[in-house]
Amino acid sequence: MDNCIFCKIIKGEIPSFKVYEDELVYAFEDINPITEGHTLIIPKKHSQDLWEIEAESLTAVHLASKKIMDAIKKVLKPTGVVAMQLNGKSVGQAVFHYHLHLMPRYEDTPPLPVARWELTPGNMDKIRETTEKIKAALR
Amino acid sequence: MDNCIFCKIIKGEIPSFKVYEDELVYAFEDINPITEGHTLIIPKKHSQDLWEIEAESLTAVHLASKKIMDAIKKVLKPTGVVAMQLNGKSVGQAVFHYHLHLMPRYEDTPPLPVARWELTPGNMDKIRETTEKIKAALR
Repeated sequence: MDNCIFCKIIKGEIPSFKVYEDELVYAFEDINPITEGHTLIIPKKHSQDLWEIEAESLTAVHLASKKIMDAIKKVLKPTGVVAMQLNGKSVGQAVFHYHLHLMPRYEDTPPLPVARWELTPGNMDKIRETTEKIKAALR
Repeated sequence: MDNCIFCKIIKGEIPSFKVYEDELVYAFEDINPITEGHTLIIPKKHSQDLWEIEAESLTAVHLASKKIMDAIKKVLKPTGVVAMQLNGKSVGQAVFHYHLHLMPRYEDTPPLPVARWELTPGNMDKIRETTEKIKAALR
């Protein structure tokens, strides 16, 4: 897509630190890394988010993420990795081309800001109601 | 796996708010929801994390997530959704059975604590070095 920074990276019009590429997927290091090895995995075919991406691209991105996870484990030895994918400006999506973040954490790095939240017990009646709504939409 | 709470949920030994099930995948509402519609999608075959999960289960979980995203959009009308999957205790993984979180945000809810972080420009030489290490491990 014109004016999409990630489409330009895929085409080589903007340089990137590429770690992996196949027919459907491109992966590169984030230049504003949250930690060492912060990697972005994107489909070559432009789609905005999880609502828009086609099954073939979605599958390819996640199979590639597994390969890249193995490589990160082998060479960087993280204690853990967050896999995160944002859909919508209101949750912080900044580039509107589907991208999966892999964010490693190391023994000597502080907790990632992204991966912890307060566990607050929900209202069971409300959850039951939500469950029924989602189930009905899936039928 | 014995003593895995998610395996027990799949077998029906522990009750859950199920929204979706197919041959390979089970999905249910989080009982400590970060927001309404906080959904967990898990493979029926036990595996700990993204390193351990098999390609077939991984693909099935993410294809199911897309269906559930559509249902959430339709009935709950979120402004955005975070898709997050944690690998390792050090990044907050609490149940050691692979699970993908879908966390919706709404117009009237505060920013999700999980989805924003400071953008800090990285050291380009260091990123180049990391890129070469990961690429080498992927060969």
